[in-house]
Amino acid sequence: MFRLIRTHSSGARYGELQTVHGTLRTPFFMPIATKGAVKTLSAPELFSLERDIDNETTPIVLSNTYHLYLKPGLALLRQAGGVAPFMHWPAGGAMLTDSGGFQIFSLSHLRTITEEGVNFRSHIDGSMHHISPEFSMEIQSVIGADIWMAFDYFPGYPAAPEDVEHSVQLTTRWAKRCRAWVDSYREGQGATTQKLFGIVQGSTIAKLREQSAKELVALDFDGYAIGGLAVGEPAEEMYRVLESTVPHIPSDRPRYLMGVGFPEQILEAVKRGVDMFDCVLPTRNARHGSLFVHRIGHESIVANDLSEVQYERINIKSDKYSKDFNPIDRACLCSTCTSGFSRAYIRHLFSVNEPLAARLATIHNLTFYLQLMKEIRDTITHI
Amino acid sequence: MFRLIRTHSSGARYGELQTVHGTLRTPFFMPIATKGAVKTLSAPELFSLERDIDNETTPIVLSNTYHLYLKPGLALLRQAGGVAPFMHWPAGGAMLTDSGGFQIFSLSHLRTITEEGVNFRSHIDGSMHHISPEFSMEIQSVIGADIWMAFDYFPGYPAAPEDVEHSVQLTTRWAKRCRAWVDSYREGQGATTQKLFGIVQGSTIAKLREQSAKELVALDFDGYAIGGLAVGEPAEEMYRVLESTVPHIPSDRPRYLMGVGFPEQILEAVKRGVDMFDCVLPTRNARHGSLFVHRIGHESIVANDLSEVQYERINIKSDKYSKDFNPIDRACLCSTCTSGFSRAYIRHLFSVNEPLAARLATIHNLTFYLQLMKEIRDTITHI
Repeated sequence: MFRLIRTHSSGARYGELQTVHGTLRTPFFMPIATKGAVKTLSAPELFSLERDIDNETTPIVLSNTYHLYLKPGLALLRQAGGVAPFMHWPAGGAMLTDSGGFQIFSLSHLRTITEEGVNFRSHIDGSMHHISPEFSMEIQSVIGADIWMAFDYFPGYPAAPEDVEHSVQLTTRWAKRCRAWVDSYREGQGATTQKLFGIVQGSTIAKLREQSAKELVALDFDGYAIGGLAVGEPAEEMYRVLESTVPHIPSDRPRYLMGVGFPEQILEAVKRGVDMFDCVLPTRNARHGSLFVHRIGHESIVANDLSEVQYERINIKSDKYSKDFNPIDRACLCSTCTSGFSRAYIRHLFSVNEPLAARLATIHNLTFYLQLMKEIRDTITHI
Repeated sequence: MFRLIRTHSSGARYGELQTVHGTLRTPFFMPIATKGAVKTLSAPELFSLERDIDNETTPIVLSNTYHLYLKPGLALLRQAGGVAPFMHWPAGGAMLTDSGGFQIFSLSHLRTITEEGVNFRSHIDGSMHHISPEFSMEIQSVIGADIWMAFDYFPGYPAAPEDVEHSVQLTTRWAKRCRAWVDSYREGQGATTQKLFGIVQGSTIAKLREQSAKELVALDFDGYAIGGLAVGEPAEEMYRVLESTVPHIPSDRPRYLMGVGFPEQILEAVKRGVDMFDCVLPTRNARHGSLFVHRIGHESIVANDLSEVQYERINIKSDKYSKDFNPIDRACLCSTCTSGFSRAYIRHLFSVNEPLAARLATIHNLTFYLQLMKEIRDTITHI
């Protein structure tokens, strides 16, 4: 299911992750379709965009369990046969679902955490809900992704050491229950097409990260995520956590750093052995006019030796682009940059609130991130 | 430049309107790119959408003089070489600009109308501006459309008869000044590639409509618009106005009913000899979830004998579509309907405010309107 093919002198890994919908080359980045769509793009458009950048890897999208559970809800998703057919994500594409644990923490109100699970109020309409580890698995089974995440408990950041310790212990106990539910589900299905990943907690405390990783590894998951990062801690702190976590994850399992991040953070994590990423940065920044571009004079985003990423961020809303008839990024191959849309035009669209602005910018930024990952993969495999 | 080819027994006309960018089959409908984009669509996407429905006619888009004058402004449009290259509207497509007269009336604040022109405050930032007939021509020359509209004065609706009479007289005097400006501009350019249309006013008063039409016809415009309609009057009143106006426009000139309307209003106007239309209805309704669909059991929108249009409007946000996995409209050939997006999915996108909702709906509704026009043209030419 995961095959580690090459490790670069920098520590970066190239591998292949098999899913029922195709094989993904790692490291890879997953665009986020929070509510059943990557904002401004249809699923077939996203699929083509990913395919166009690297047709040797399977396109993948991340869907949010918390959001989809609240809307459109399980009854509808059951009828639709899962969110992929519902949103028309092509059969040749893979999908990962988070567990909802982090969103319950960050979005819902009046959370009560018990051993059994979490009670919370919907951020949409204030209705009360209960999600247990087992129910998170059931929701994910209905959504129907290729990769499911165990239901974890994030203690917040910063958190008191005793809260972090409690979150690690509870996350392990919940992970065990997720594993049991999925084992029984797989028996019922007579197939093991879904992968289940455990999520390592432990905040910035090295020995709790180690404990969390070891306890989860003992449960033998298909892959391991590092959760509770990119929540406000300094980047250096995040890198230290990776260094105290990754060595405790077997090298034959994929490692997924959740919610990260800027290109340089992704590269640093890759060099510390991380294989999978997701983040709202490229899409959210796009909607605010913050665009990722190649550093002038550089044709590639990633330096030959993986020593650094070479890019700038520009605020396309700035006056200085008002008469700039160049594309966003001359070195970019996205349809926004190659079709002839100028910085001046895109700036204008933002200044008059035209919805096309967010779309053209989203296409560009997502392409930038996917190109970044392709260059990382190509660099590892070509040396 | 305009060739009337066939008149249907119903009164509907089929003709060809030549522009420098290609020949348009009439009657036709113009999607509106108010601020340099049809909301949610790029110009090349709109072009392809139009082309896909009827590749025997030239795609056309309408741009708003008032909006483009305020933003991005003339300096930028001059540098860009016009709004078509700025928005990347393909060279194979035509464009019409309104004159700004109606928008100044409907959007701006503190208007003062004098013989010279109009002083008004921008609805965007409150800045003061002055637009005269000559300046409207100059703005339109900078925007660079194929068809320009004379700067008219709309007295509001309802309006006192003396105000309507004044508006007719002023509109004629302004039309004369527009004509003079364009004649001199054409001499300077050594070419007559731009068409200039006069706009008939006169509200719902038949003899003032007749007077306005005759005075403008005496000035010999390339085409004639009927303005000041679709402003709140009953549809029957609008049809009566058409009947008292169209006969005074020479049959060898195109007639353009501005801002209309629902499909049945377009058909009724076509049967009264109108050739050109524009309206925000398909795009604005789309953004609010109001979708035009074929009447069940009908493969065409227009009855064989042009007696009626056969359609329904559905509110896709309604609960009743929450589990409806059919496309918006089985008889529709738009990419939204043929790609597999269901009513349930589009309803979901609206319910969670995903920007993709407006885009999928806009593609559908615009296709419906363009298909309506194609069916009207085909019906006239095939009988």
